[in-house]
Amino acid sequence: MSEKNMRYCLLLDFYGEVLSDNQREMMDLYYNEDFSLSEIADEIGITRQGVRDAVRRAEESLDSLEEKLGMIARFDRLRVQRAEIAVLLSDDSRPRDAVIREALQKLEMLEI
Amino acid sequence: MSEKNMRYCLLLDFYGEVLSDNQREMMDLYYNEDFSLSEIADEIGITRQGVRDAVRRAEESLDSLEEKLGMIARFDRLRVQRAEIAVLLSDDSRPRDAVIREALQKLEMLEI
Repeated sequence: MSEKNMRYCLLLDFYGEVLSDNQREMMDLYYNEDFSLSEIADEIGITRQGVRDAVRRAEESLDSLEEKLGMIARFDRLRVQRAEIAVLLSDDSRPRDAVIREALQKLEMLEI
Repeated sequence: MSEKNMRYCLLLDFYGEVLSDNQREMMDLYYNEDFSLSEIADEIGITRQGVRDAVRRAEESLDSLEEKLGMIARFDRLRVQRAEIAVLLSDDSRPRDAVIREALQKLEMLEI
């Protein structure tokens, strides 16, 4: 799957509920089920061009939501911070008490 | 501040960018700056009833977004999970290695 497609799968997962049922169904078929535009057109009973336009509009809505709300960026940062704490806790070359103290500090600073 | 008001401050913080500039300004004055409806009406130059309607519509938009996207609920869960890890790490009655192992597992399960 291309990076662009993976991004829309993620955007759909976060913001899909904001789309209309119809848009969400087309986006789900297109991005999660890997249907072609023509296959979706057959499935839904509209033209291929109609599907293409609807998918494009839905993509714009999702991009606009992420631009405004930045939830994916926020969760990405959280995952990085979590990984840093995991690395710290897994480092058994340092005194356990110091590791725990530092992990607590980093946990406290987790941008939730 | 009432619990309802605190909730709208939080909703504004998460989803405020989705409102129009005008709506966001009124909501900011009302919820963050504690202006009255009449004071906002004077500030913006519309009727008190106009402000009341705009605030009500904005509240509905924010509630609807949280109902669909659930970001506040999601971050609330994350904070609870973080607190559990902090309690675990702070428990110095248990062997350090066991504490670290368990913290790593809980960190891995953090619903990010």
